[in-house]
Amino acid sequence: MTDLDALQPLSPLWAGRLHLMLELMATLAFALSGVLEAARKRLDMVGVVVVAFAAAFGGGTLRDLLLDHRPFFWVQDTFFLWLVIVVCAAAMLFMRQHHLQPTERAIVWPDAIGLGLFTVIGEERALALGQPALVAVMMGVITSVFGGVLRDVLCNEVPRALADHRPYALWAFAGGWLYWALRLALPVWLCISVGVTAIAGLRLLSVWRDWRLPAWRQ
Amino acid sequence: MTDLDALQPLSPLWAGRLHLMLELMATLAFALSGVLEAARKRLDMVGVVVVAFAAAFGGGTLRDLLLDHRPFFWVQDTFFLWLVIVVCAAAMLFMRQHHLQPTERAIVWPDAIGLGLFTVIGEERALALGQPALVAVMMGVITSVFGGVLRDVLCNEVPRALADHRPYALWAFAGGWLYWALRLALPVWLCISVGVTAIAGLRLLSVWRDWRLPAWRQ
Amino acid sequence: MTDLDALQPLSPLWAGRLHLMLELMATLAFALSGVLEAARKRLDMVGVVVVAFAAAFGGGTLRDLLLDHRPFFWVQDTFFLWLVIVVCAAAMLFMRQHHLQPTERAIVWPDAIGLGLFTVIGEERALALGQPALVAVMMGVITSVFGGVLRDVLCNEVPRALADHRPYALWAFAGGWLYWALRLALPVWLCISVGVTAIAGLRLLSVWRDWRLPAWRQ
Repeated sequence: MTDLDALQPLSPLWAGRLHLMLELMATLAFALSGVLEAARKRLDMVGVVVVAFAAAFGGGTLRDLLLDHRPFFWVQDTFFLWLVIVVCAAAMLFMRQHHLQPTERAIVWPDAIGLGLFTVIGEERALALGQPALVAVMMGVITSVFGGVLRDVLCNEVPRALADHRPYALWAFAGGWLYWALRLALPVWLCISVGVTAIAGLRLLSVWRDWRLPAWRQ
Repeated sequence: MTDLDALQPLSPLWAGRLHLMLELMATLAFALSGVLEAARKRLDMVGVVVVAFAAAFGGGTLRDLLLDHRPFFWVQDTFFLWLVIVVCAAAMLFMRQHHLQPTERAIVWPDAIGLGLFTVIGEERALALGQPALVAVMMGVITSVFGGVLRDVLCNEVPRALADHRPYALWAFAGGWLYWALRLALPVWLCISVGVTAIAGLRLLSVWRDWRLPAWRQ
Repeated sequence: MTDLDALQPLSPLWAGRLHLMLELMATLAFALSGVLEAARKRLDMVGVVVVAFAAAFGGGTLRDLLLDHRPFFWVQDTFFLWLVIVVCAAAMLFMRQHHLQPTERAIVWPDAIGLGLFTVIGEERALALGQPALVAVMMGVITSVFGGVLRDVLCNEVPRALADHRPYALWAFAGGWLYWALRLALPVWLCISVGVTAIAGLRLLSVWRDWRLPAWRQ
């Protein structure tokens, strides 16, 4: 009880650490989804790196632009940029060596985890800046969805998030409201765990069970 | 005469109200054009909402970003966001129920009205911030055209504004200069009425009479 | 020796002039590449102008947005906007009159020169604002590559920079580091000359000798 209470106003240092770690994981997850998508479209080496960057940093950058929050997280910690470069190189070498052909299936996992993480991170940042609830939820959705949309636009495809017919952005939106409701009562670390698990889990479940959104008259 | 003079420096309250109402109408017009386009491309439910949001808020958001004007109009009045969500839901239900198949023709009307309204709004905001004439006109064009361009890019089509061969952005550009000239002499409400009518009217006329821009050697 | 030393902290006036001239040349080069691309895709007159604007101002605008640098260079000198409008009109008239069919080949030259110029300009601006080395190099790459990417996305093509298989953004990245290293020791004007020549030269050489990036398993 006292533990939870003590956590509620998370100490700045710990909040910073936790935030950084989550942002790192989500960035890696989306960078990987970018590498896989670009590889599937047979872009060249540079194209793979650029698409990975767009997928990894697009959402967070747009969020920071909209919230007028500077410096960007990747300017503050250039470490992020190096990491994505290294991950791209490693992924390319690994796939070359093991003659792996990335399938559409392979993107689902990092994509779902990144979706959950970025939604919660984006929303948390907007809430910290005192934005109203709907705007904060929107920022969460933008953070998590825009990177993937940019990735698909660069690859000249209709963004999967818009035409997949299996809920994706919808879970980010619903999960965003869940997170907002939880934040009213529960400590941050618990909200984050529940929020991320719920969003990623529901997305994976949607793909696995092939849940479909009501179609627009087929 | 005294009436017009009194209006010239429009009272802040009235100017705010008028501005809000125009922005509202233009936002709805473009949201509807987004819904119709997304439905034609058979995106899923979420895709329809996202494309509607992009069409409705894309132009104004880019303008505010470029002018460094915060908070965005949709952060200041989250009412806008709710409205678009409701409009999307209503439009989808209505079209499902009435078995309406949106045609390319159906987008022309809201598109033309939104074009006129957003051009004038965007230009007025830039002028209010003391930007030079050409920049203000450009902001008007960007506000009105970018939403549609984003909508078409998300749907993986060559933006209609760029390849329609019937003048579209051109009327926004010409109407922007007309508005600027009128503003030198006439009260705001008259400038707005004339500007919006001229731009929307010319666009509709272009479609109806099939006026063509000089082609690039066919 | 004294000469070079005197130049190192370039007098503000001269630095401003040099910067303006370079930005002008790069803007023209990219505007031309936009005109040629749009003409090849048979966009209408307005589409040609919009794509030229996107190619010419897209990279620098994104850089200024990310660095939070206002006013934009094209707001500060609206002269730029007029120039691009005039260039577009002239290019269209000229191509119409001489029955020139723009080939893919024709874009290579202005594209390569713009690549070199914009990389150096973008990086220099980021360095002037005290950004770390990697971020400055990234800003150079973004400045020079984003305009072309935007141009290709608007024309509904996979961006050439990502799928050309001949190094393009890679030279901007490598040249950015070269420029950064040179800046530690040499006067600005020399760094700029060497940097631009190296990047543009290597790009042209890549196209001419058909150097290929290691492919992603063909």
